[in-house]
Amino acid sequence: MEQNLENPYLLLTPGPLSTSRTVRAAMGRDWCTWDKDYNTDVVQSIRKQLVELSTIDVDNYTAVLMQGSGTFAVEATIGTAVGMHGCVLILVNGAYGDRMAKIAKQAGLSHVVYDFGELNPVDPSQVHRMLEADARITHVAMVHGETTTGMLNPLALVAQVVKAQGRKFIVDAMSTFGGIPMDVSALNIDFLVSSANKCIQGVPGFGFVIAKRVELEACKDFSPSLSLDLYAQWAEMEPTGKWRFTSPTHVVRAFQQALLELREEGGIQARYARYSENHRILAEGMQRLGFQLLLPSAMRSVMITSFLYPADAHFDFARFYQALKARGFVIYPGKIGAHETFRIGTIGDVHPQDFTRLVQMIGEVQRLGYC
Amino acid sequence: MEQNLENPYLLLTPGPLSTSRTVRAAMGRDWCTWDKDYNTDVVQSIRKQLVELSTIDVDNYTAVLMQGSGTFAVEATIGTAVGMHGCVLILVNGAYGDRMAKIAKQAGLSHVVYDFGELNPVDPSQVHRMLEADARITHVAMVHGETTTGMLNPLALVAQVVKAQGRKFIVDAMSTFGGIPMDVSALNIDFLVSSANKCIQGVPGFGFVIAKRVELEACKDFSPSLSLDLYAQWAEMEPTGKWRFTSPTHVVRAFQQALLELREEGGIQARYARYSENHRILAEGMQRLGFQLLLPSAMRSVMITSFLYPADAHFDFARFYQALKARGFVIYPGKIGAHETFRIGTIGDVHPQDFTRLVQMIGEVQRLGYC
Repeated sequence: MEQNLENPYLLLTPGPLSTSRTVRAAMGRDWCTWDKDYNTDVVQSIRKQLVELSTIDVDNYTAVLMQGSGTFAVEATIGTAVGMHGCVLILVNGAYGDRMAKIAKQAGLSHVVYDFGELNPVDPSQVHRMLEADARITHVAMVHGETTTGMLNPLALVAQVVKAQGRKFIVDAMSTFGGIPMDVSALNIDFLVSSANKCIQGVPGFGFVIAKRVELEACKDFSPSLSLDLYAQWAEMEPTGKWRFTSPTHVVRAFQQALLELREEGGIQARYARYSENHRILAEGMQRLGFQLLLPSAMRSVMITSFLYPADAHFDFARFYQALKARGFVIYPGKIGAHETFRIGTIGDVHPQDFTRLVQMIGEVQRLGYC
Repeated sequence: MEQNLENPYLLLTPGPLSTSRTVRAAMGRDWCTWDKDYNTDVVQSIRKQLVELSTIDVDNYTAVLMQGSGTFAVEATIGTAVGMHGCVLILVNGAYGDRMAKIAKQAGLSHVVYDFGELNPVDPSQVHRMLEADARITHVAMVHGETTTGMLNPLALVAQVVKAQGRKFIVDAMSTFGGIPMDVSALNIDFLVSSANKCIQGVPGFGFVIAKRVELEACKDFSPSLSLDLYAQWAEMEPTGKWRFTSPTHVVRAFQQALLELREEGGIQARYARYSENHRILAEGMQRLGFQLLLPSAMRSVMITSFLYPADAHFDFARFYQALKARGFVIYPGKIGAHETFRIGTIGDVHPQDFTRLVQMIGEVQRLGYC
């Protein structure tokens, strides 16, 4: 790839994912964390753009940036929103839903877990029944795109149920925000969590939360963690753009460049179209080669796709991985219950021609007997 | 500075601090977080070097990297080491000691705080008395270099007391590790915390902990936070270099380059000599210009220095800051009790000639009546 001269291979992992050369080049200078050159011109600019990307109801939503990986932002959100007073229903159908349950358990938060199984989407009618039956539940938390399988959960339907039942809705949209058009206000989402290194195509180092302003304002002193106190982070950041503690300045500046490149591409709709085309070429090409997809198309996201191991005695994932890496692509392993799978991501600075070439390369490796 | 073409000014804040062009250039490619190119060749290499920098007793110590700012690593250490069973004595003489107390309070940890006041170093005999008097205390936590004032606390003396009393010692060496020679084993330090963007001169995005192996191994299931579970982070990272959750790959790679440049400079002893010379030129130059230092020389670190506002009716910090920024330097405000101060850092990719020029520029601004 012309724009990825420094990268010996494309990351189809995701994420971190492949970024553009220009996003990485934006990390070329140092920033003072209390000067307005950074706080106003970079941080506040990013926060404003994130809200604008998430809804037309910009006055009622706000954005908070949080140091660490996406999981840190998820924990900050659950810990701060649910706190020691609430009770959260966690909807699970993969490792990332399960991780929310682990966060709640380890922090000693009151929580209820419902596991739909990795091969089933979250069922809104089951959510309805649980909320009807259990008045303790104050919050519902769900992963939108479950990277474990590539499953896209029925966000709008679950959102309707949660709203009808008068509960707060926390959505882990780590691998979907910025890559699938959605409006958090129309969906009645109270807290949406994502991170820098997913569909916005920045480099890893921080996560962010789009929060309904009135809900976040109600969370003062709820967090059991100083570092992960989402309210305190927002209260400091809101007026001036200053983070409470040292921020990953170079990563943040790269994210601002990534937002510019998202606009230049034509916004989320255009990016969704590209990811969809990446996914179509990959899915159709792999099926032509005889690979079987784990999920039916109605359940699949266009972010990452799970494939069953081929029924070929020569297939060995480690060798397959190395063969593709030598040809310029790294892919992702995955084990779904009894199913041995591997996963291929289609987000990042990766384009339809990359997937055309990938399918050719996989065909070549296949013809060589996966050796 | 030749190596800082992209930086319009030097950061004397610190930190984040000014890094070298070559450190920033190391962020030019993307990394796969589960490939050995990253986990073995970057992460494990860094962990090994950190232990080697911290002690000759390399078999009994281990290094853990933690996403987020230095505060996240401090919270991870306190939360995981003290947990819900221990009780930590927190020695305070500035904002960073105070922050440890806030961490303990917000997490609901059993803790005792002793505040020596911002202008006094930690007093080992007082620590001795407190440990003699209170058998509940299992851990002692102290900041080595208190950035609030520039105070260097008497690490070796406090360490002796803590060891003699059979307690565990947690040291926040954020702004000193890598810039002052020390051996964690000789000092009987159980957990030492620092971050990427201090004396190792990396860019911000993660912290790290040098831990006595046997002490860290005893901390399984102690942490009240999933993200900040130092034991779980170590248990995953130790065999393969894989982080539990997405790591700031570009920042980590830059840190590896920073470690190389520390070796090329001649190691910690040489770096300490440079910082000492930076500090000497600054302190002597400012005194020649009539500025008064907050602390006597015996209490001062060579990392950051506090100066009292001059007794000049024209002096206005905001204008002084802008005048120096226009001349290529950004400095740091600071308020110490009743004293109005500003602070100037001397760590990072900054050299004696920079401080000679800084003193000249401050003299120029002074002659212009601080206007």
